[in-house]
Amino acid sequence: MEHRIFNFNAGPAALPLPVLEQIKLEMLDFRGSGMSILEVSHRSRWFEDVLDEAIVRIKRLLGLDDRYEVLFLQGGASMQFCMVPMNLCVPGKPAGYVDTGSWAVKAVKEAQIQGKAVRVLASSKDRNYSYIPEKIEIDSNLAYLHITSNNTIEGTQWQRFPDAGGVPLVSDMSSDIFSRVFDPGPFGLIYAGAQKNAGPAGVTLVIARQDMLERAPEQLPTMLKYTTFSGKKSMYNTPPCFAVYVVCLVTRWLEETVGGISAMEAVNTGKADLLYGYLDSQDFYSGTSAPDSRSRMNVTFRLSDQDLEQRFVQEATAAGLGGLKGHRSVGGCRASIYNAVPIEAVESLVAFMKEFARKNG
Amino acid sequence: MEHRIFNFNAGPAALPLPVLEQIKLEMLDFRGSGMSILEVSHRSRWFEDVLDEAIVRIKRLLGLDDRYEVLFLQGGASMQFCMVPMNLCVPGKPAGYVDTGSWAVKAVKEAQIQGKAVRVLASSKDRNYSYIPEKIEIDSNLAYLHITSNNTIEGTQWQRFPDAGGVPLVSDMSSDIFSRVFDPGPFGLIYAGAQKNAGPAGVTLVIARQDMLERAPEQLPTMLKYTTFSGKKSMYNTPPCFAVYVVCLVTRWLEETVGGISAMEAVNTGKADLLYGYLDSQDFYSGTSAPDSRSRMNVTFRLSDQDLEQRFVQEATAAGLGGLKGHRSVGGCRASIYNAVPIEAVESLVAFMKEFARKNG
Repeated sequence: MEHRIFNFNAGPAALPLPVLEQIKLEMLDFRGSGMSILEVSHRSRWFEDVLDEAIVRIKRLLGLDDRYEVLFLQGGASMQFCMVPMNLCVPGKPAGYVDTGSWAVKAVKEAQIQGKAVRVLASSKDRNYSYIPEKIEIDSNLAYLHITSNNTIEGTQWQRFPDAGGVPLVSDMSSDIFSRVFDPGPFGLIYAGAQKNAGPAGVTLVIARQDMLERAPEQLPTMLKYTTFSGKKSMYNTPPCFAVYVVCLVTRWLEETVGGISAMEAVNTGKADLLYGYLDSQDFYSGTSAPDSRSRMNVTFRLSDQDLEQRFVQEATAAGLGGLKGHRSVGGCRASIYNAVPIEAVESLVAFMKEFARKNG
Repeated sequence: MEHRIFNFNAGPAALPLPVLEQIKLEMLDFRGSGMSILEVSHRSRWFEDVLDEAIVRIKRLLGLDDRYEVLFLQGGASMQFCMVPMNLCVPGKPAGYVDTGSWAVKAVKEAQIQGKAVRVLASSKDRNYSYIPEKIEIDSNLAYLHITSNNTIEGTQWQRFPDAGGVPLVSDMSSDIFSRVFDPGPFGLIYAGAQKNAGPAGVTLVIARQDMLERAPEQLPTMLKYTTFSGKKSMYNTPPCFAVYVVCLVTRWLEETVGGISAMEAVNTGKADLLYGYLDSQDFYSGTSAPDSRSRMNVTFRLSDQDLEQRFVQEATAAGLGGLKGHRSVGGCRASIYNAVPIEAVESLVAFMKEFARKNG
């Protein structure tokens, strides 16, 4: 048995153990091909079967109808910050953004670099991004309304998506895709770097509605145009085959082992309730996000001082609980409890937190 | 023992068996971390060690001095077709390109889409790209001179790089990087999709000289600017960690097992001489590239008709020789004999070709 810890990394993050075991099992001979998945041609039936399976499972898991295309791109959410305005802005219509944290700020900046008309409709900067703004004035003339469904760094999450009327929603769902049930209908485009809930770093899921694809200006560089990918099933050039393969295995695990998104959501709610329940029951640790905006993926908390926080992270690491340091831009502690983190990990964490509080309280 | 074939794929392509075995060995527990390499943070010492090792080995293998930075990007050579003119064009100076095949054509097109001044200085289109042009008129006012060092589809390769005087060379080396010794000095920038000689699909090596980095216009989208990557050791955002890790293992294999690029070149020359020697000795198969322009990486050849070619590929596949079909845009047959393809594979191929010719001649 290999040594394995409980992994609370914010991303790249824990993957389901059966997925890793499958990768290991078929590393030298992928399904009788006599080649590794790293060595088969992307134009071979071996890889095409993987790609097709991943697309079918993603569409089924998210309940996407035929208007939606599932694309596999590269460059992470950061590349999407640039591609979204490049492809979806419409002359005479400003793009709306809600500023809920570090990633939203970057998304806004990339639209502005391109000289696009941007309106920041609401922001929670006034209170360190500790909440999701309630009131958003949505003009029906917007090209789209961009939100960040879960804020990895600040530990907040949209509990209900805003009603934007006829304005298409665009969301960065990097850190909570596949974690809960939602209606995709109002979304024109969803993107997600895979390395939190969907797979490894190196592939970005883009889910685009047909009417959004039609907006792309003619003269974009080929690799920056969504239609390059939608027209060729993400194979205009060589896709990141291995990362797509892992996404395929993760979605298979979600459907066949977990039982779909609603079963996954129940598990995630259980994990979050356990951890927030403990945080609310004591005062050695304090949660940083407003209770009505709490993320069920990234639980952020502080201790009374930075030295203690550092020792907390060190002792937790030594006890087999890894990745609990907060993002370097905000400090503190953070437990990322994505889909692949089992309830046992959260139970161990709470037990450790209790003991650490007892010894240092 | 797993079933393994001889893999002549053009890319993704064969990887060294010891590299695959290492990946398999440490898939569940990366160097005592208790996590997979797919699960460790890109900001952890585990991944930073991998990244640092890959950079040091690449610099040593290619003999790069301190003016050069080694970057890891995403999007393949196709994304570089767009980023090169975006970052390296200079107002008032046209960009020079040599048109040696399908990939060069795409590189030219992406510069033109951006409205850059482009001069195609030479082309071998007149004879189906079967040779590398000899005479190239190089104007000293060029922003750069772009070449494709090896043409994967057409089976040609620059034998000596052009003397461009003070004009920086820019080369797509996707399909022959690490395969032979060359002087990097005249090169301002080299890029290579990893999936032929350097690793798996999903990471692109970019080797940039400092004076080239300084050319980037201020207002580029962040992810399309080389300085975003050079300033943060390719970690502005999450890099494609697993693909970088495999590149690290491949370069380690090149240094520690093969003995460096000059040893690798000797092996590659031996493989190419064996296969071209056989092609030249008979007339059942005919090579498609001019003898003075032959690629030592992709050996392209035809049989007398397409039905026979199809049967050749089928029977070869059945005999454990995979990936011999030519690129769909040109047809015919192609044996890609990259670094990781052993001489035994080429010996088996030649033996098979002889037997197939005897039975069908």
